[in-house]
Parts: sequence; C-alpha cells; structure tokens
Amino acid sequence: MLKNDNFLRACRREKTDYTPVWMMRQAGRYLPEYLATRSRAGDFLTLCKTPDLAAEVTLQPIDILNVDAAILFSDILVIPEAMGMELQFLVGEGPHFPDPVKTAADIDKLVIPDPMDELGYVMKAITAINKGLDGRVPLIGFTGAPWTLATYMIEGGGSKNFAVIKKMLYDQPDLLHSLLNKITEAVIAYLKAQIETGVHAVQIFDTWGGILTPDDFETFSLQYIQRIVEEVGGKVPVIVFAKGAGHMMESIAQTGCDVVGVDYMSDIGDIRRRVGDKVALQGNMDPCNLYASPEVIRRKVADILAKYGEGSGHIFNLGHGILPDIPVEHAKAFINAVHELSPAYHKG
Amino acid sequence: MLKNDNFLRACRREKTDYTPVWMMRQAGRYLPEYLATRSRAGDFLTLCKTPDLAAEVTLQPIDILNVDAAILFSDILVIPEAMGMELQFLVGEGPHFPDPVKTAADIDKLVIPDPMDELGYVMKAITAINKGLDGRVPLIGFTGAPWTLATYMIEGGGSKNFAVIKKMLYDQPDLLHSLLNKITEAVIAYLKAQIETGVHAVQIFDTWGGILTPDDFETFSLQYIQRIVEEVGGKVPVIVFAKGAGHMMESIAQTGCDVVGVDYMSDIGDIRRRVGDKVALQGNMDPCNLYASPEVIRRKVADILAKYGEGSGHIFNLGHGILPDIPVEHAKAFINAVHELSPAYHKG
Repeated sequence: MLKNDNFLRACRREKTDYTPVWMMRQAGRYLPEYLATRSRAGDFLTLCKTPDLAAEVTLQPIDILNVDAAILFSDILVIPEAMGMELQFLVGEGPHFPDPVKTAADIDKLVIPDPMDELGYVMKAITAINKGLDGRVPLIGFTGAPWTLATYMIEGGGSKNFAVIKKMLYDQPDLLHSLLNKITEAVIAYLKAQIETGVHAVQIFDTWGGILTPDDFETFSLQYIQRIVEEVGGKVPVIVFAKGAGHMMESIAQTGCDVVGVDYMSDIGDIRRRVGDKVALQGNMDPCNLYASPEVIRRKVADILAKYGEGSGHIFNLGHGILPDIPVEHAKAFINAVHELSPAYHKG
Repeated sequence: MLKNDNFLRACRREKTDYTPVWMMRQAGRYLPEYLATRSRAGDFLTLCKTPDLAAEVTLQPIDILNVDAAILFSDILVIPEAMGMELQFLVGEGPHFPDPVKTAADIDKLVIPDPMDELGYVMKAITAINKGLDGRVPLIGFTGAPWTLATYMIEGGGSKNFAVIKKMLYDQPDLLHSLLNKITEAVIAYLKAQIETGVHAVQIFDTWGGILTPDDFETFSLQYIQRIVEEVGGKVPVIVFAKGAGHMMESIAQTGCDVVGVDYMSDIGDIRRRVGDKVALQGNMDPCNLYASPEVIRRKVADILAKYGEGSGHIFNLGHGILPDIPVEHAKAFINAVHELSPAYHKG
C-alpha cells in the first residue's frame, strides 16, 4: 500500500488534495549526493548497472526534495545495448554506438533480449528501490520510444540534423520499419518486465519525435508507441512524452495512454482544452525557469497552475529534464511552490 | 522592371501561373561554386564583407538552380558587430562573441550603427547583386529577429539550453528589454537601408523564437518583430520566419507581415486553414528530404503542393536551410519538381 498515491490518482484523473509533482532527471547532476554516488560508481553506465547504486540515486530526490513520485534511474539506451549493440559513454560527448545500424543484416543481428536476464540489473534496481521507498511514493519505470532509440542506433549517437536516419526514412522506409518493429518488440517485453517487477507507472520518452513532420511522426513514431500502449496499458498508467510535439497532442492522446507529457513550448491551458477530457497532462515549466530566483519560480508555478485551472488530472513537472547547474535550493522552491499553491485548485 | 516577379506576386497573394520557389541558404556549401568563391575570400566573414564576392555567391543559385528569388548573402550577426561587439567565426565551431553582453553598462556601450556607413559593405553587395541579376528575379534582404540576435550577443555564440539569456529573461526582464529595444532600433535602420538600396522584399529570421514559452515568445520576441513590421512594412513584402513556432502562427500573422514562414514540423495545409486568409505562406519541405532520391523528392513536393491546395499565396521553400552535404542534383530535382507540378494548382 502506498502512503502517497497522489501521482497515480492524478494519472487516472481522480481527485487529489493538491497537484502532485516530480521532475524529469530529478536523480541527476544538480544534486551533490548524486555526484558523490556517481563518483563511487566510476562511470555513468556502471551506475546504471549497479542495482544498489541506481537505487540510491533514485531515492535521493525523494528524501531531499519531497517529490510525489520516484523514477527509476537508468538510461534509454540500455535496450539497444541489450539487443547486441556496443554502447559507450564518452566523457563530455554523450552516448556513442561505434557500430551503428546501417543494413538489413545489421538489423537481423539484433536480438530481442529477455529483460529478466539481459536487463536483470534494471529489475534488481526496481526491487531495491521499492524496498528503499517502503511505499512512500510510487515508482515510475520508463523506456525510450522506438523512434528515439532508432535515432541513436542509426546515427551512432546524438545528432544535429538526423541526416542518416532521415535519409533511411525517405529512401528505405521499409528497412527503417523493420528496425522499429524489432525495437518495439524489445520495448514491450522490457516494460512488461518492469511492471511485473514492481513499477507503478511507465513513461515512454520520445525525445526526438518533434524533429519529424506530422505525417512522419504518425508513421514512424506514433504507431509504434500506440502498439506499446496497447500491450502494456491497463496494467499501470502509461505516460507518453514527445518533446516538440505540441501540435500532435490530439494524436498522442488517441493512443490510449493515460497521461500526455507537455513540453515547455506549449500552453498547458490550451492543451487541456484540446485533449484534457481524454487524458491527464504532465508538465510543463521551462527547466530554465529554475535559474531564476525562488520568488520568480513561485510566480511561474502559479502561472502554470492557473493555466491548467481547477480540478484533477494535472501532474506538475518541468517541460524537459532539470539542468545540471540548477541550485538545489531552486529545485526545492519549485517543489514547495507546487505543494503550497496547488490546493486552491482542488477544492471542488 | 522584373522579368520574373512571381515571388513578389505570391507574397501579395496575387495570381501566378506556378508556385515560385527558393531555398533558405541557397547560396551555400552544397554548391562547389560557393566553396570556390569562399576559398578565394579566405574566410566566411571576409566573404560577407567583400561586396563583389558576396554578390557572386548570391547569384550562383540563380544561374545553377533556376530559383525564383535571390537572397542577399550575409550573416545575421553583422548587426551586433556593427553595434560594437567583436565577432569571430571559429572554424568548425560557428560564431563567437568573446565579450558577450552581461550588464546594463555593456548595453549602454552598444551603438546604433548608420547602416549606410558601418554596414556599407552590405549595401554595396545589394547594388552589385541587382546589377548581376539585371531584373531576372527579385532580391530578398534579411535580418535576424531581435530575440535571436540577443541570444548570440548574451550567450556569446550558439547554445544548447540558452541558460544565460533565459536566466536574464526570468530574473532581469527589464535589462533584456533594454537590449532588445536597442537591437530593434538598429534592425529597423538596417532594413530601411536595404530597402532604399534596392531589395524587393525582406525576411526576418527568428531562428530561436521556438525555444520560448508562448507567453515569453509574445513578450520577448514577437512584440519587437511587430515593431519592425510596422516600420518597414508597406514598402516591400515582409516575411517572418520563426523556427519551431508552429503553434504561434496566428500571432505571427497578426503582426501585419505579408508572408509567414512555415517550418517542416508543421502541416502547411493546417496552417493555411488557420491563417491563410491573412498572409501568404512560405515553406515547408524537410531539408533532410533532399537526401532522398529525386523520385522521392518529387513525391514529397507533390504532397506539400496538395496540402497547401489550389490558389495563390504559396511560396515553396524548405522548412529550414539547405544542408551542406546535399547533392546539387537533388536540389535541382527539388526546384524542377515545384516548377513542373505546381501549375495544376494555379488554373483557377
């Protein structure tokens, strides 16, 4: 039994006494405690793969910031690695796949991992986190969306123009679909294992969905997200967050997901008017707002609460991950402002 | 007298026999002829500042690709440089201001340049281009939007998170407004000088407008664009292109501009339904589409023509600048496809 289930209630648009809040990347470099644990791990990937340390950093923001949900500490790219790709994290340069996917033969070589085995370290972390949480707040599991995972697997890492995957999209769409199908199968198994192991909700991150034209977003990203939602939805709430896809909110809401993440470039009041009778909304303060003084942070929180308006179905969050150089006091001011200012919107 | 004024007629939503087309960054690195001229100039900034060479690269795509408009070859950052900031282009790293704007004193030091003097090399280039064009097609002048120029002046160059300017925006909005006011004054004088010297239309590029929340976009970018449109509109058509601002199209159309640029993440048919009775639209093929084969390029051109539909008021373009590694033959296939497929939409 959870002591604080406000996050889950908001996912289902049930009444709560205040607006629950958490932050994307809340277990992250802005916390000195995180940096200390990471330094003990040695490197980022070892931190992801050491269940006790992954659990430790997952729990830190619960203790320090009083957020209403924990999110599994991991990386979206553990799936391609478990599918057989060598993954490196180069210091200061981000993730790197030295042998990116180029051909049908490369795709054939990829395996659908047994997540309880090849991603067993994630499942062990989930168990350790739930033990440490002791029911204080729910735990969110997650995955990258197939399109977003494919961008890294094909580009070999981060990208500015996504030229390689877009060339494949336009010239060899069938080849790209065969890769997306395989990733989708792996993602479904991975999320089912997370749920079976004990996460209370899952979030699908489509970090790079916004670089697609609307038609291509439907064809190369959303249809795969929809298949995932169909397979894992109903068991636990499913959140879909596609950055830069404010104009696609109606389509995302129609996948059957419970919650749609709203990035900071959108007006959450506008999005609620468009899709708020179908789904809960999560968001959407500009992460750069947290550079401002606590007084300004509080005013911006008030703005977003007012934009969303009265009633349930809002999970407060940033519109993207918290940045590494945000002062911890500012993050605390953000969480406190949501807790203090939101009850006025839940009287009815 | 212009021999081909289809671009200008489309800007005014007057009837044309086909859809005129040009490409953002059409004078650029994908052309071997451009690379040859640039190599004679030595470096990028010298190319911008040598009127005969700037004219030469401006004219190349007219001769090679048969586009319906020329666009002045220059850089948006010549304005901050003329305002007194040292500007460097570091090889492989993009623009760099070693002494970025930090304080009120830094803003006080900036001057409003006399564009006929400090930016005289631009005016000389315009004169040389018009001589070379000999009325074949119109010449588009341009500027960066004040917000976009301010990002470079405050961040000191390109940025990932725009943390410095956003910190100023949230904590010292008045300071930022004083800078934006000064830039706006310089931009208005600059565009008036371009028009007086002979450009037939002007485009305002707000490359980074899309990183703002909708409220902040109105406050820190659009109100300054509006002031520019009020000062220079009526004389020549004014195009406003804000990347990543698909959800702000109604607001942009209300500035009084003649043409709104549409990025590739938007559906141009949807945008036409929303604002097409007020303004012409320019766009919006994904620049990465040009990596695909000429057959696929032709099909994508057909898609966008069909999305816009029948009648005037469409200027075909990419939804962002052409990329440096696009084969010239693909760029030609793009221009030819627009010219060949569009007359069917202008029968009425």
